[in-house]
Amino acid sequence: MKEIVAGVDIGGTNTVLGLVDRTGRVLAEKNLNTTDYPEINDFVEALVLAINELLSGGAGYKLLGIGIGAPNANYHKGTIELAPNLAWKGIVPLADLIRKRINVQVIVTNDANAAAMGEMIFGGAKKMKDFIVLTLGTGLGSGIVVNGQVVYGHTGFAGELGHTTVVPGGRACGCGRRGCYETYASASGLVRTVLLMLSEMREDSLLRDIPPAELTAKKIAAAAAEKDPVAVKAMDFTAEKLAFGIYNAIVFSSPEAVFLFGGLANAGEMLFEPVRKYVEMNVQPIFRGTVKILPSGIPESNAAVLGAAALIWNEHPE
Amino acid sequence: MKEIVAGVDIGGTNTVLGLVDRTGRVLAEKNLNTTDYPEINDFVEALVLAINELLSGGAGYKLLGIGIGAPNANYHKGTIELAPNLAWKGIVPLADLIRKRINVQVIVTNDANAAAMGEMIFGGAKKMKDFIVLTLGTGLGSGIVVNGQVVYGHTGFAGELGHTTVVPGGRACGCGRRGCYETYASASGLVRTVLLMLSEMREDSLLRDIPPAELTAKKIAAAAAEKDPVAVKAMDFTAEKLAFGIYNAIVFSSPEAVFLFGGLANAGEMLFEPVRKYVEMNVQPIFRGTVKILPSGIPESNAAVLGAAALIWNEHPE
Repeated sequence: MKEIVAGVDIGGTNTVLGLVDRTGRVLAEKNLNTTDYPEINDFVEALVLAINELLSGGAGYKLLGIGIGAPNANYHKGTIELAPNLAWKGIVPLADLIRKRINVQVIVTNDANAAAMGEMIFGGAKKMKDFIVLTLGTGLGSGIVVNGQVVYGHTGFAGELGHTTVVPGGRACGCGRRGCYETYASASGLVRTVLLMLSEMREDSLLRDIPPAELTAKKIAAAAAEKDPVAVKAMDFTAEKLAFGIYNAIVFSSPEAVFLFGGLANAGEMLFEPVRKYVEMNVQPIFRGTVKILPSGIPESNAAVLGAAALIWNEHPE
Repeated sequence: MKEIVAGVDIGGTNTVLGLVDRTGRVLAEKNLNTTDYPEINDFVEALVLAINELLSGGAGYKLLGIGIGAPNANYHKGTIELAPNLAWKGIVPLADLIRKRINVQVIVTNDANAAAMGEMIFGGAKKMKDFIVLTLGTGLGSGIVVNGQVVYGHTGFAGELGHTTVVPGGRACGCGRRGCYETYASASGLVRTVLLMLSEMREDSLLRDIPPAELTAKKIAAAAAEKDPVAVKAMDFTAEKLAFGIYNAIVFSSPEAVFLFGGLANAGEMLFEPVRKYVEMNVQPIFRGTVKILPSGIPESNAAVLGAAALIWNEHPE
């Protein structure tokens, strides 16, 4: 019997699941449309069916557990709570519902915590005990590892660096407050910064020809690579804001590395180089030169499933 | 043989040491003038002599170890490094020097980390696994506990919340940078805020009659209790800044409680009430109502010695 783990990534529109072996290979994968299941019980039924289908595709798998990354997931309770992007309202006891149908360990946490676990088990943080993963997409997710353990905190929701206040009274955030880190340091934060720069600067820019609704971090990074003045300035401003949150996080947990992942991180050295510069310039002197700022060591295409699976593999050391 | 631990608090001018039993009773105490020993070897000699004197004062003590709180202390290495307020320059291998003379466990960390350990072993956090202690004196020290462990981080220096940047380009800080949390949220930060308010406000104030060099948090709190308009406004501003750092720390580690300790915390409910209000108003909604803001459960007179001793008692669970 080959030991195997199911990794599940639940998103607002799409759910991806895969079987992952101890070495981090994804042996089989499947998708569900999350929106096809407005009733949570129907979703759980479909999910368990899909896992069983994947299992029956190989000869003699022994399923050790199911790891799940999901928005607003509570690690301690195995629940999804008040997730604005999901149809299931209130508090959804996801782990319990799954365990009623398939008797294995089920661990639930948010996608950034799963990403941190993935980095530790399969990625660039294999030998690290203290590090932080920032996922820079529509928002900014964070997974924090201290003493070799993901930080879940008293509530089970810890690691929400995207909602530290970095500019009091600043940009409106989806959480209902203003000036959150993720409104500046994320793919969508970069888009907002371009709009600000377009309002302030008089220079010509390729970005004046793109409707704001179609602006993306990728297009802005491409323009910055062409030395478009607005894109260059927006990228630098974003790197400075991203660095601000990083050097404030460093004094908290003194990580060995900070891994950047997701849409904005794909800008590569154009982002990493100024982020490193601003972190070293501004961090408390005692921490200078102590923190590596690195791209994730996990391939983006499999990251969510690998991270979710890592939640279970972490419980089964070799 | 009664098991006992020595707790040592090394300050710039004064060093306090005491023998502490498992229940947190200080059985004997002694002081040294730190400044009498510009040579570290002389200091270690005097410290070990003083510990032996205390031990010989009781019948049949078995010394389990020596816990030490000191500025710029590195937990991993047992060193004091580049401490601006101490005569010993460079990197001082304090734990090794002591162990050469007295063969017991020696643990060294900064005073705020020791305070957090004291709170967990002897104080208000006995049953907590996730909490933060803020010491509000001349500066702002912090000790962070995650999963029942003090956070030391990769470098051994973690938990320096006093040096998170809260106002970019703001007040000059002793660390050489600007806008650090401790320049606003500390006893000396409150004094600086009063000077700012005196410059901005036209109202009469008792505080206009005190030379700035003689202003203290205690005098300002007393004036605020008398409804002095400048003192009241300064206290509110300070509570708001203190709350800012607290709600940004909450999203990081989701603590069950934040304990406030030291000079500024002695203002009592006049401080705690607005701090609680600003935290609840501004914290990310998912954490509302999840964090208690509490006074330390350790008597201030013994806190440093108890915290240092707790470093060793933590290694000897009942």
